[in-house]
Amino acid sequence: MQSKKFILQESDIPEAWYNVIADMPEKPLPMINPETRQPLSVDDLSALFSKEASSQELNTTDRFIEIPDEVREMYKIYRPTPLVRASGLEKALDTRAHIYFKNESVSPVGSHKLNSAIPQAYYCKKEGVTNITTETGAGQWGAALSLAAKHFGLNLAVYMVKVSYNQKPYRRSIMQTYGAEVIASPSMSTRAGRKIITENPNYQGSLGTAISEAVELARSTPGCKYVLGSVLNHVALHQTVIGLEAEKQMEMAGEYPDIVIGCFGGGSNFSGISFPFMRHNFSGSRHTRFIAAEPESCPKLTRGKFRYDFGDEAGYTPMIPMFTLGHDFAPANIHAGGLRYHGAGSVVSQLIRNQLMEAADIPQLETFAAATLFAQTEGIIPAPESSHAIAAAIREARRANEEGSAPVILFNLSGHGLIDMTAYDSYIAGDLVNHQISDEQIDRDTADLQGI
Amino acid sequence: MQSKKFILQESDIPEAWYNVIADMPEKPLPMINPETRQPLSVDDLSALFSKEASSQELNTTDRFIEIPDEVREMYKIYRPTPLVRASGLEKALDTRAHIYFKNESVSPVGSHKLNSAIPQAYYCKKEGVTNITTETGAGQWGAALSLAAKHFGLNLAVYMVKVSYNQKPYRRSIMQTYGAEVIASPSMSTRAGRKIITENPNYQGSLGTAISEAVELARSTPGCKYVLGSVLNHVALHQTVIGLEAEKQMEMAGEYPDIVIGCFGGGSNFSGISFPFMRHNFSGSRHTRFIAAEPESCPKLTRGKFRYDFGDEAGYTPMIPMFTLGHDFAPANIHAGGLRYHGAGSVVSQLIRNQLMEAADIPQLETFAAATLFAQTEGIIPAPESSHAIAAAIREARRANEEGSAPVILFNLSGHGLIDMTAYDSYIAGDLVNHQISDEQIDRDTADLQGI
Repeated sequence: MQSKKFILQESDIPEAWYNVIADMPEKPLPMINPETRQPLSVDDLSALFSKEASSQELNTTDRFIEIPDEVREMYKIYRPTPLVRASGLEKALDTRAHIYFKNESVSPVGSHKLNSAIPQAYYCKKEGVTNITTETGAGQWGAALSLAAKHFGLNLAVYMVKVSYNQKPYRRSIMQTYGAEVIASPSMSTRAGRKIITENPNYQGSLGTAISEAVELARSTPGCKYVLGSVLNHVALHQTVIGLEAEKQMEMAGEYPDIVIGCFGGGSNFSGISFPFMRHNFSGSRHTRFIAAEPESCPKLTRGKFRYDFGDEAGYTPMIPMFTLGHDFAPANIHAGGLRYHGAGSVVSQLIRNQLMEAADIPQLETFAAATLFAQTEGIIPAPESSHAIAAAIREARRANEEGSAPVILFNLSGHGLIDMTAYDSYIAGDLVNHQISDEQIDRDTADLQGI
Repeated sequence: MQSKKFILQESDIPEAWYNVIADMPEKPLPMINPETRQPLSVDDLSALFSKEASSQELNTTDRFIEIPDEVREMYKIYRPTPLVRASGLEKALDTRAHIYFKNESVSPVGSHKLNSAIPQAYYCKKEGVTNITTETGAGQWGAALSLAAKHFGLNLAVYMVKVSYNQKPYRRSIMQTYGAEVIASPSMSTRAGRKIITENPNYQGSLGTAISEAVELARSTPGCKYVLGSVLNHVALHQTVIGLEAEKQMEMAGEYPDIVIGCFGGGSNFSGISFPFMRHNFSGSRHTRFIAAEPESCPKLTRGKFRYDFGDEAGYTPMIPMFTLGHDFAPANIHAGGLRYHGAGSVVSQLIRNQLMEAADIPQLETFAAATLFAQTEGIIPAPESSHAIAAAIREARRANEEGSAPVILFNLSGHGLIDMTAYDSYIAGDLVNHQISDEQIDRDTADLQGI
């Protein structure tokens, strides 16, 4: 019988993360301190983040950064994760393409987010921090950080985007079961939240607003640090365990991917699966295509502008050189809450500029059709976010069928959708729609941003 | 670093199931055809079940029964499952006991139930069946059979116990996403359902009633067979892949269990983890204790009567020699929907009679305290059903602490609780209570049953 899964042992958990910046042919532009207008320093960052995360954030030289033993020990709860040959999906598509997925949904919180939650909580603990804050969209990041915070004995407050707080109440319960405090965002507990509620009482929130609230609480609370689940370099760094494991597993399968796909919100899971493979493109030994799959309703990579912009709605964060729809862009209430973010990190933005990767924007209905086919053929009900990657993989397999080619496609199944069943209910009932945005809206929302 | 998980490869998936009856020192009493009052024949059974399942049901001689290739192929979606050293839980309990759990929650439907859903659907398909029916309590079995039915191209109707249908709407959505039809039970679609609704319009259902409805639909539909998720011998047989894998994994860990624990509804997961280890007790080479953990509110093993009783509420099934609370026992609306069943199968009942295993009954609040501690220390939010096994393991570890001993404890984590977060919400809010039943109720509900 053919192998379905490629399974590693605990000793195969990587001992170091891969820092893609060290290998990039053209480095990303620096992030800017909006007060001094100077490139961001480790000191600037460590006012908000742990010192170690701050130092990793600005590390442009070390190709590999060691994973602490305490982090690898907690990784063992769910890592290594399986690489799976999607033979059922291939059969349904009647394709000669070989489709593989890295199954990050096996983590106890249901997604890849623990990969960065664990080291970030660990560094905070090690540096004497007692309280941390964060934001969460669909709740995947918040659930992961809740578990990591409990493990390392930290108190945690999570600002959860209101639309997801209401759509996905089970994720709130999961965070509470792990012992975290959860607040729907925008909330009255911060200046940033009060301002937006006053202006727009029915606003259902966005990741940008939730970040503002979490940052504000961290800044105003002694002994408290802020922790971020995506966008920044150190988060992408931690997620490279995904791709480093997948590289070994593709070797077990005797193949190498022609195409690597991840869904794209802030970039953490896309970066995690892609960067380790990308280094072989940089060295010229491989010519893999890398595709970031984003929602049609939040198309920063395919239709956004390259600008210096804030990472949050209120403008508390550093200015990041990014493809953006504008930091006050209000995304449609799609069910892929983790992808409702206005911008991309500086590294991915630079890679797009240098045509070292691609992006595809996918309508909501196409993602749920792909998700349902995947569930019925591979058994796993995927998260609405991850379904963007599945839809992109299906597009590539269908294109290969038309062209008569047989590429090796690898995508990251970043999470399962068991907490997202209301979304599937809506899809089954025919209540879901696509959401387009106009060029005019993008022009308007990015008009005030500083060009580069 | 110490190993946390013990991981097998796909080639380690067992090639045969273990049939405990062949090795039992005293065989179970026969099931009885209520019409003829004679021991049940394969022909009697195959009017309702697939021929192969019927033949396995009455097989008392073959110690091992081969697993078809098609079944092993689909097992690869999630098997082998990990064996995990619960080091976080051990630390929290400050115990010298070594606690291991077999993690069946990694299956895409979140529980061990696929282990039998796959072969049962496969046999139906192979024998030309087009439609199947079943019942489900919490929805774990229904979700599993929905996926297996889709895989083998069968139509499926699932009767879901009403209390769970309302408590766990996501499980209904999961079944629908896999393509199954789901009906809340009791329903107006069957005579059995109509009768009970007429007598008791607010009845929230039980597994016994749902079985009656599914059996009635199967009998009245040409080309349709009925498929059961627990209680019967062939279901327990299929579940022995759990214990057979765990045996190899305990060997990898260099240990052998002194105590093996499973939660107990109809017996499928308890039997699955226990029977393969039990054969070494039969041969005298080992002296492991086996503990079935049942709810205090549904205590058939600890307080039920040994009688010939029906497997369902309406009396459609064969008469089974079982420990029972009476087939019309109405269990309290606890959140562990999968354990709300009045009786035990004939094999487990015989093993209890022969003191070859034990049972423990656990109050609801103790199970949620155990579940929360487990979630915070091991990361996985357990199903309310599985939490009974965790609570029993914690009891044993605490007893060992008092005695100064250090036993090796193995329990089966039969499923995760991500679809059961309303239960956790109630627990966090302090709304959950314990449910006791009186001796008088048990005497009354079993008074009419035939003694043995």
